[in-house]
Amino acid sequence: MEQELLVVALGGNALLAPHEKGTAQEQQANSARTFEELACLFRPQYSLIFTHGNGPQVGNIVLQNELAGSEVPALPLDVCVAKSEGSMGYFLQQAVLNALRCRRIRRYVVTVITQVLVDRKDPAFQNPNKPIGPFYTPAQAQNLMRHKGWKMVEDSQRGWRRVVPSPKPIKVIQRYMIRDSALIGNIVIAAGGGGIPIIQKADGTYEGVEAVIDKDLSSAVLAGAVKADRLLILTAVPYVCLNFKTPQEKPLRQVTTAELAGYLKEGHFAPGSMKPKIEAALLYLRQGGSQALITDIPSLPMALKGKAGTQILCPKSART
Amino acid sequence: MEQELLVVALGGNALLAPHEKGTAQEQQANSARTFEELACLFRPQYSLIFTHGNGPQVGNIVLQNELAGSEVPALPLDVCVAKSEGSMGYFLQQAVLNALRCRRIRRYVVTVITQVLVDRKDPAFQNPNKPIGPFYTPAQAQNLMRHKGWKMVEDSQRGWRRVVPSPKPIKVIQRYMIRDSALIGNIVIAAGGGGIPIIQKADGTYEGVEAVIDKDLSSAVLAGAVKADRLLILTAVPYVCLNFKTPQEKPLRQVTTAELAGYLKEGHFAPGSMKPKIEAALLYLRQGGSQALITDIPSLPMALKGKAGTQILCPKSART
Repeated sequence: MEQELLVVALGGNALLAPHEKGTAQEQQANSARTFEELACLFRPQYSLIFTHGNGPQVGNIVLQNELAGSEVPALPLDVCVAKSEGSMGYFLQQAVLNALRCRRIRRYVVTVITQVLVDRKDPAFQNPNKPIGPFYTPAQAQNLMRHKGWKMVEDSQRGWRRVVPSPKPIKVIQRYMIRDSALIGNIVIAAGGGGIPIIQKADGTYEGVEAVIDKDLSSAVLAGAVKADRLLILTAVPYVCLNFKTPQEKPLRQVTTAELAGYLKEGHFAPGSMKPKIEAALLYLRQGGSQALITDIPSLPMALKGKAGTQILCPKSART
Repeated sequence: MEQELLVVALGGNALLAPHEKGTAQEQQANSARTFEELACLFRPQYSLIFTHGNGPQVGNIVLQNELAGSEVPALPLDVCVAKSEGSMGYFLQQAVLNALRCRRIRRYVVTVITQVLVDRKDPAFQNPNKPIGPFYTPAQAQNLMRHKGWKMVEDSQRGWRRVVPSPKPIKVIQRYMIRDSALIGNIVIAAGGGGIPIIQKADGTYEGVEAVIDKDLSSAVLAGAVKADRLLILTAVPYVCLNFKTPQEKPLRQVTTAELAGYLKEGHFAPGSMKPKIEAALLYLRQGGSQALITDIPSLPMALKGKAGTQILCPKSART
C-alpha cells in the first residue's frame, strides 16, 4: 500500500470538553480516549503529524499569570503558548505511546516545540480580535484596560474578555525536522496552539510577539510545506454544513475548492468556528495539496475511505 | 576533522541568575548571552544535544499553581516539568537560532519534549529529599503538610521548603529521535529539567509521577544511550576542586574515573551541587563513554582543546 503523509489537526475538544476545568486527570483521560478512537491512523501506511488547539489551556496559563502576578513574573503570550505546547504535547505523546504499546506497534512519538513566523506588519496587530482567557465584570475590564493596556471586548452574554492579535502564519520554523521525523516513521506532535508566534527583526533575528495563531491555518501552512498528501481537520461535527443549524441545513460530502470558496463568500461558515477550518483547507489546497478532509473523530475511519466527512478536492487544473 | 557527538548539560544559571525573578526579558537575555559564549560549539564537526536544568522556572510554575489554585486546577509535578520544557526550550532554541543567523550558519534547532522512565520502586519515593519552590514560615509549612500532604523540611537559614522524590533516571524515551536528529546536523534541546518523570505500569503503559529527576544524571543516561563522544557538564566554576572553598582547595585537571570515585567517597563534593555532576560523569563513563568534562562556560573553548576544565577519563580497560 502506498505511503501517505497526513497532517491531522485535533480540535480543542480532543483534550478538554467545554464544561471541564482543565485538571490533569481530565486531559489525560481525554487524550487517551482520543487516540483510542484514532487508532485507525496508526497503520504503517500513514506517516503522521498531529497538530492541536490550546484555547482553554493557554487561557488557564494566562489566568495563573495574573492571579500569581504579585509573586511570580507574568510571562508574555508567546511564552504561555510555549508552556502549553510542553504540557499538552506531553499529555498527547503519553497517550499515543500508550495506545501504541497496547497494540504492540513499535513507533516512536515526539513533540516538537514549534515557532511560527508571522509578519509584524500583519493588520491583526492593529486590530486584536481573538478572545483569550476568562470573562470579567465591566469594572474589572475597565481596570485591566487602564492598567495593563489590554484591549477588551464585551461578549453580550458572558461579560468582558481580553482580545489579542491573531496574525496569519507565514512559515513553520521547524517544518523540515517535523517532516523528516514523520517520514522515517515517528509520530510527530507539532505546532501546538497554532505555534509560538515570532517575527523577524530588521537584523534577521527572531523575537516573540504577544499574539496567538489560528491552529487550523498553521496546520495548513505546515501541511503545504511538508507536502502532506492530506490535511485532516478534526472537529465536533461529522460534516461541514450549509445553512448550519437551520431547517435548510445541508451536509457537504464532496466539494471542490471553487464551490467551497463560493459558500465561504456567501457567509455559510461561522467566524471563530467553521470559517477558519474552511480557510485552512482552501489555503492548503492552494499550496498544492490534493485533498482536505473535515470531519469528527468518530467518522474518521469511514472518512479515510472516502465514505464520510466533507472531502474537499482541488481539480489539478486549479493548483498553483 | 572527525565528527563528534556532544551532550552538553547547561546549568540553571545559563537561563537565570540566583538574584533574578524569572521574567521573560531575563531569560531571553541570559539565553542569548549563553549561546554567544558557546558559539565555539556551532562548528560543523560537533553534533549537538543540549540539556538544561529548570530549578527556578519549575519553582515559579509550582508557585503559580498554588497562588491561582482557587480558579485554575493545579497540575501535578510531571506536567509542571513539561511546561518548563516548553517555555525554556523556546527561550533556548530562539537564542540558538539567532546565534546561528548572526553567523550565517544554516542548521536547524529543535526542542524535544522528553519523558524519562524511573522505577516506581526507587527508594527516592519513600524518601523525598529534593527541595522545590518557595520558602515558607513554620505556620504555613504546618498548614501545607496537613492539607496538601506535602513533605517539607526546614532550611536552617531561610524557612521551610517542600521536598519531592528525585528518583534515578533509567531510560530516556525519546533517545533515538534525539540522536538521529543530532546526527544529521540539527541542534537538539532535550531532557529539560532532567525530563518528565514517568513510570511503567504492570500493563506496560506509562504514567507520570510527582517527582523531579536530576538533570545531570538524565544527561549522563542520555549521553550513554546515544553513544555520545563526550559529556560536557557546564557549571559555575572552571574546575572541579578537592577541598573546595578551603585553604587546601586544589583544582582537578585530568582525573581518571577510579581516582574521582575515590574522591567522591572521601566526601569532597557537596550534595545538590558538585556531587550529582561527579556521579553523572562517572555514570556516563561506566556506560562506555570515553570522556566527561566539567567546567564553566567561559573556559569551554580552551577546555574543548584539553587546556582547561576538569577532564575525566576512563581507561579503556575499565570500561564495561
